[in-house]
Order: sequence, then structure tokens, then C-alpha cells
Amino acid sequence: MVDKLPSKDKQFSEWYVEVIRRAQLADYAPIQGCIVFMPNSYEIWENIQTYFNKKIKALGVRNCYFPMFIPEKFLKKEADHFEGFTAEVAWITHGGSSKLAERLAIRPTSETIMYNSYSDWVRSHRDLPLLLNQWCSVVRWETKATKPFLRTREFLWQEGHTVHTNKEETDKEVYTNLKLYKQLAEELLAIPVVAGIKTDAEKFAGALMTTTIEALMPDCKALQAGTSHNLGQHFAKVFDIKFIDEKEKEQYAWQASWGFSTRLIGAVIMVHGDDKGLVLPPRVAPTKAVIVPIFFDDSKKKVLKEASKLHKTLNDAGIITHLDDRDIYTAGWKFNEWELRGTPIRIELGPKDIAKSQVVLVRRDTGEKEAVKLAKLEKRIPELLEEIHASMFKKAKKFLKDHTFEVKNYKDFTDVITGKKGMVKACWCGDAKCEDAIAKETQASIRCIPLKEEKAFSKCIHCNKKAKHVAYFARAY
Amino acid sequence: MVDKLPSKDKQFSEWYVEVIRRAQLADYAPIQGCIVFMPNSYEIWENIQTYFNKKIKALGVRNCYFPMFIPEKFLKKEADHFEGFTAEVAWITHGGSSKLAERLAIRPTSETIMYNSYSDWVRSHRDLPLLLNQWCSVVRWETKATKPFLRTREFLWQEGHTVHTNKEETDKEVYTNLKLYKQLAEELLAIPVVAGIKTDAEKFAGALMTTTIEALMPDCKALQAGTSHNLGQHFAKVFDIKFIDEKEKEQYAWQASWGFSTRLIGAVIMVHGDDKGLVLPPRVAPTKAVIVPIFFDDSKKKVLKEASKLHKTLNDAGIITHLDDRDIYTAGWKFNEWELRGTPIRIELGPKDIAKSQVVLVRRDTGEKEAVKLAKLEKRIPELLEEIHASMFKKAKKFLKDHTFEVKNYKDFTDVITGKKGMVKACWCGDAKCEDAIAKETQASIRCIPLKEEKAFSKCIHCNKKAKHVAYFARAY
Repeated sequence: MVDKLPSKDKQFSEWYVEVIRRAQLADYAPIQGCIVFMPNSYEIWENIQTYFNKKIKALGVRNCYFPMFIPEKFLKKEADHFEGFTAEVAWITHGGSSKLAERLAIRPTSETIMYNSYSDWVRSHRDLPLLLNQWCSVVRWETKATKPFLRTREFLWQEGHTVHTNKEETDKEVYTNLKLYKQLAEELLAIPVVAGIKTDAEKFAGALMTTTIEALMPDCKALQAGTSHNLGQHFAKVFDIKFIDEKEKEQYAWQASWGFSTRLIGAVIMVHGDDKGLVLPPRVAPTKAVIVPIFFDDSKKKVLKEASKLHKTLNDAGIITHLDDRDIYTAGWKFNEWELRGTPIRIELGPKDIAKSQVVLVRRDTGEKEAVKLAKLEKRIPELLEEIHASMFKKAKKFLKDHTFEVKNYKDFTDVITGKKGMVKACWCGDAKCEDAIAKETQASIRCIPLKEEKAFSKCIHCNKKAKHVAYFARAY
Repeated sequence: MVDKLPSKDKQFSEWYVEVIRRAQLADYAPIQGCIVFMPNSYEIWENIQTYFNKKIKALGVRNCYFPMFIPEKFLKKEADHFEGFTAEVAWITHGGSSKLAERLAIRPTSETIMYNSYSDWVRSHRDLPLLLNQWCSVVRWETKATKPFLRTREFLWQEGHTVHTNKEETDKEVYTNLKLYKQLAEELLAIPVVAGIKTDAEKFAGALMTTTIEALMPDCKALQAGTSHNLGQHFAKVFDIKFIDEKEKEQYAWQASWGFSTRLIGAVIMVHGDDKGLVLPPRVAPTKAVIVPIFFDDSKKKVLKEASKLHKTLNDAGIITHLDDRDIYTAGWKFNEWELRGTPIRIELGPKDIAKSQVVLVRRDTGEKEAVKLAKLEKRIPELLEEIHASMFKKAKKFLKDHTFEVKNYKDFTDVITGKKGMVKACWCGDAKCEDAIAKETQASIRCIPLKEEKAFSKCIHCNKKAKHVAYFARAY
């Protein structure tokens, strides 16, 4: 019998790292701050990719691949952008035994390399909108403490980069993608999020406006789960992306960029896991159900035969199922292992079940059991998977609601934040000085101003002057 | 009207580069030797990925992702391997403004970084076989002239890395993957290949045995299109990958690695293209058919309405179709453009066709036309796509057969090679000295010794001593 996991409630950070290790989601790489994405996590990422590709392709976005190398002079072209990334860039200085004439950055993000090409590709309003996306890895040479999936020196992401003729169309693109991100978090990963706009201090380096989805983790820290930026004409002016409009007039183009990363996997682990291990949201789970045959020596042959038949039936019906027919482990040992790995449904099949033409289904999220006739399984399992999704999402939504506090004075504000009780909704004057002072005093940042601006319900939480916005504050990953 | 393409027959190299540029498959990147994979080529790669993932997943292979960084000391661990790659490695020396304690290579291939983890993961024969694959980009700082898709400093590939208990099982894995590669080339890309074994001089740096599939390009140069290696226990000994066998005895593991890259896209362009541009094999073509509505002012509204209806019907039926309804170009201009882009079928729809409830289908590969009733399209298009595949494959097979010459003396050998007439099948004594001399004298290398060894039909083509193998010789990309 293996040791129990650390308690999720009491030793959250240890619990997180142990779940990742034991569920074989990732391993530490021999390069500081890097991880290996093992199949158990990479297959979650593949499912996220499949889901998201379908959504964006339906909107006319096409995938492509740009080089990972960015000449230093490109990064330097947009001052804010360079400022934002230079401290954490990995530099290539040599090819083989030759020193390069100009050192190359490994992409921390691809605006500059892509927009250099865009300036060749965009000529006329007929070339617009230009809607491209790429899936790749990016490198940011973090000096802060790293943590698997949440902050590593190399991680995987998608980055969409689109070009438009005007601000309205660009804003529309920004919000369309933000909405897709919210759907992805909620409908695929069962993680409720708050969608909103970043303050100037928190926006992307070089952007006019940054929108974000923010999720709340069990330790009451917020996690930025996807961002979508209106880049305005900043990059177009720097990279000379111009088009001839319908009136034959030359104009600078408008641009948007939008991305989410493998930190979503970290969010899935944290939001849904429990003291037994991972709990995977069914829609993104690589394996939907695991069959664990239960037998003694005399029933082994018969049970394995039936289990194997069931395995085939379910996979043929499109329900991705694993049969754990290893005979060196007991059924109880296997129960623990598959609970650790978070597979949404366990299918128990023993001699008594066979006699009754049934199996017992066990939900990973609640542990609830139900006996289901073999003939009804193909209908019942997909139903049950949807029930599990709904109930996981409901639970996570309740957590978010119960841990979001509207506060009207700074004492309550600091109580919630420093007491790690939740996220705060409070009024803010709009001055970056207050925002900065709050961050220094409490380590909480403004996560976002909600998309639908709300009416101020108090004075500014910090300076007590007239409030301009209602905003969400939290410490963050 | 745009300029004609260079002639494929007479100016093959210029033709290749021009097709890539005009069909918007790739663009040159601002880093020497690198390209941008534009959507028109990247979507071919996505289709290759989907096809291949399905095949390997059915065999129990799982995808993962390892860091792109390889510590220099890892590369140095296996002497042959280091020797084989060191001259073309890109080195990272700085993270932010700090110099790294040890420089990091960007992966030229991932044996070393993966096997370092494998040594932690493999403990018992029960952990084997370990079957992993990753899709990623790799970097080789080429000093030779680069060419889009065929030789660039960064390219995309898959690399499978598997661990086994013994040689037989490893060989089986090697040949299984080689067979998958042959199927991929022939069944998906309509490119016939010769499968065989590399000589010691040509095998992978660190391998016991390398198998390969080789395709013949129209300029009679061979293109290595995929390789599958038995690595023996070399890397296991260097990286300490050991397992306890069924008899409780500790043994070094056996390993295989296998890969193909985006150079397959280059092969598709070269093998199938013609003087009008790209000709895409239907099964891998991102868009199977393009609808070009034909109208004058008085019929425009009606034709576009019918075209749009047809577009929806076909896409709903799973036939990925594009409707080219731009009104600034003539139908003739569009015909040229879609021929350039290689879309397998053009669907012409004009007022007369509507009156007869029909369309005209035009095959990209042969230009053949047929009128088909609207009601029969959903059946006819998939059939026609299969006919096109079969006919493209047949044509390519004929080319390979017609350009493979069995020769018995060195004069005929050099005639074929230096005259760029084809690939040579000749007998070889097995001595690396002869192999090397032939390469120096003719620039032809041994592409492979066929899987089914054939009986020698002459003395060694070079030294006239007793022949040991029948081998394929060619100049190569």
C-alpha cells in the first residue's frame, strides 16, 4: 500500500507537487525550471488542442508555424515589448563552432517575428482580416521559483495573431476569442472564470488593451488562464504593416493577439483534485472510464473474457475505455491507482455482476456507485460523464461564489487577502498609484475590471476618493 | 494574367522555389536558413499528424513533450552521437543577462534528454515496452545551402523513442514503424518508396541499424523520407537504462527511435507538381474541392445562391470544400489560382449547369472534366478523389520503375548517375572503401539495401570482387 497523499486543504503546495508526480503528469527535467510533459498531461493538452482548433477553424483562423528564433533587433523595435521580455530571454550566440553575427532570442512570444512577415503579406484591405494561429513552445528564463505547469522556463501554448482594418473589428476579434477562452475553461475544463479587462499596469507589453479570464484556485490565489489583446496600431507602425483601404488610401493595420498555455493543466489539477489525487473533467479526460475486473483464481478466466468483450464494445461505441487486466495487482490497488490518475468513471466487473448482466459504475468525483445493466451501458456512460461534468462545474462555481467578497473598506480588504479567504471585489479610483500601493501592502493585484462594468458601491478602497471602477483583486500565480 | 511558372522539366530547381512562393506554402524567414510554414503547408502537416497519430496510438504509442534544451554534457555522453551532431548545434549561452553555468544545445534530436528520464522511469520488465513519441521542431545549424522543406535550420518532425526487453522485440518495433512510414508515403501522399537498410556509413549516429524509406524525385535524386533505428543497448549503457527481467536479473534495455519530418511536404511538391503548380494528393489535401461559380451580371445572384447552397451541402457531408465567391477576379483567373494551389477537384457551376441540375468537375491531376448531377455529387466526389489518388500513385510508381536501372558495370553506373537518368540498382562487395570511392567519384551514396535481400547478379560494381549485397545508389537530397 502506498503512502497517503498530503492533505489538499492543509498542505496545498505539497499536495499539488505530489499529485503531479504520482499521477505521472510531469517529471522534472535535468534543466532547471523545465519539466517533461508526460503522456498523462500531454494527452490533456491534445484534447484541448482538438477542442480549440475546431472552434477557431470554424471562424476562419488557420494554423501556421514561425521560426523559434527572433533576431535581437526585432525584439528591440517596440520599446515596451522589449522592456517587458528582455530580462527573461534565452539567447543563442553560437551555431556549431561559429559565433553568430547577431544573437537570437528563443521566442518568448512571436509578435515581432510574425509581424515582420505580415508587413510583406498585407497589401490591400482584401488581404484582411488575416487570421493566423500557432501552437508551439515558448521560453521565458524565469528567475522566480518555478512550479510544474504554472511557471516553467519552457511551456506550450497557442498564440493567435490577427490583422484587421479598424479598431471596431479588432475589438470584436479580441472579445470573440475571450469568449472562446471562457467557453474552453467552463465547458471543457469545468472551471468557472471571471472575464474582464486588465489595468494599464497589468496589460501585455505593447498592447492597447488586454482582456483576461481569471480562475480562482483553492488557496484563493487567482490564475490568469488566457488573455486576448487589442494591440492597436503600435506594432503595425513599428513593423510597417499597411494596407490600401477601399478608398485607395494607405492606412496602418490594426492587430489582435490572444493566447493560453499549458498552465490550464495546472488549473485543472488544483481546482478539481482531492485527497485521493487527480479528478479529471470528463470532456477533457483522455480516458473516460477504466474497467477493473474483480476475480479470484476460479473466476479469472471468465471475468477477463467478459471484461475484454466489454472493453471492445465500449471503445467501438466511441467511449475511450482502458481495461486494467494486470494480474500482479489486486483490484483494491487498482482502484487507488485510477483514483490517483483521475479517470472519471471506474467500471467494476466481477462474477456476481456477470451473473446479473451488469457492472458497477463508480464516479471519481463523488465516489457514488450505481449498478447498470450491460445493455444500457452505451447509453448510461455518456450520460453519466455529462452529469459528472455538470456537478464538477457546479461545485467549482460554488467555490468561486463563496470565496468572492464584496468589501467596502480597506480593513476588510486586507482581512480577506492576507487571511487567504478569497478574491475581493472592491471599488477603485482608477489611479495606478493606489493599485501599486495595494500590491505593495497586500501582494494583491487587480485581476480585472469585469467586462460589464458595474456601478461603484463605495469610495476607492485605498484612497477613499471617488471610485471609477469595480475591480477584482487577488494574489495571483 | 500572371507569368507562367518555370518549366518543371527544364528548370526544376527554379520551378520548385517558385511553386512554394506562389502557392503560399512557405516564406523565407528573416533568419538565414529558416522558413515560415504558412497555412497552406502547415495544414498538410496537420493532416499527416492526424493520420499518423491514429496509427501509432492504435499500437499503444503515447505522445509527450520533452524540453528543447539539452545540456552539453548529455550530448557528449555517447561519442558517436556527439560527433554526428556537434558541428550543427545551436547553443544557448545566456538566460536574460546571466551567463549560463553550462551551455545548452537546442535539440537536434532528443535521444539524450529523453533517455536521461527513461533511466528513472524504467525499473522492471513490467515497465516495458515504453512507447513514446513527440511532435516538435528540431534545429540543425546547417552550413550547406538550405532549401524550403528539404533542408532548413529549424524543421518540424515526429520522433518516436521506445524501450524494449530484447533485440527481437526492438527489431520488430523498428520494422513496424518502417512499414507505417511506407504506408504513410504511399497511401496518404501517393509517393512510392523503396524500404531498406542503411550501410554502416549512412546509419544514424549511435545506432546499431538504421532502416529507411527512400523516394525518387523528378531530378533523379533520392530523398530519405523516414528512418527507423535499432539503437541496440548503446544509449542504455550510456544513460543507465536497466530493468529487472522476469528471472529477477538486471539487464540493459534495448531501444528504437524513428522519425520523419516536414521534408515530406517537399517530396509531395516535387513528385506530383506540374507546370501549372502544385498537385496535392487528395487524401492529404486540406481542401478537397473548390467551387468556382461562373456568372455574368444578370446571373450573379442566382449562381452565387446555388453555389453557396452546394458549398454547405458538401461540407455538411464531410467533403471539405471552399467556395471562391470573390467578385474581383474572373473565373479564368480563379481556375489558374486553384490549379497553382493544387486543390484536387474544381467544381464549376454556371447558369447552364444550374438549368441542368449539374456541375462540371475538373480533375487537377489530368484536367479531365465530367458533368455530374447535383444529386450524385456526394457520392461521386469521394469516388473521384480516390480515383485521383490511385492514378497519381500509379504515375509516380511508373516514374520510379522507369528510372531505376539495374547495372552490371561501372561505366553504365556512372552514365546513369552523372547523366541524372535515375537511381541505380547494383551489386556491392560490402566494403566501405568501395562505397566511399563511389561517393567521391559520382556523388552517389548507397540509399539502402532492400529489406528483402536480393541475390547478387554481378561482381561488385566498383572493385569487381565478389558481391555481398544488391543495393540502391543515387545522389540524394
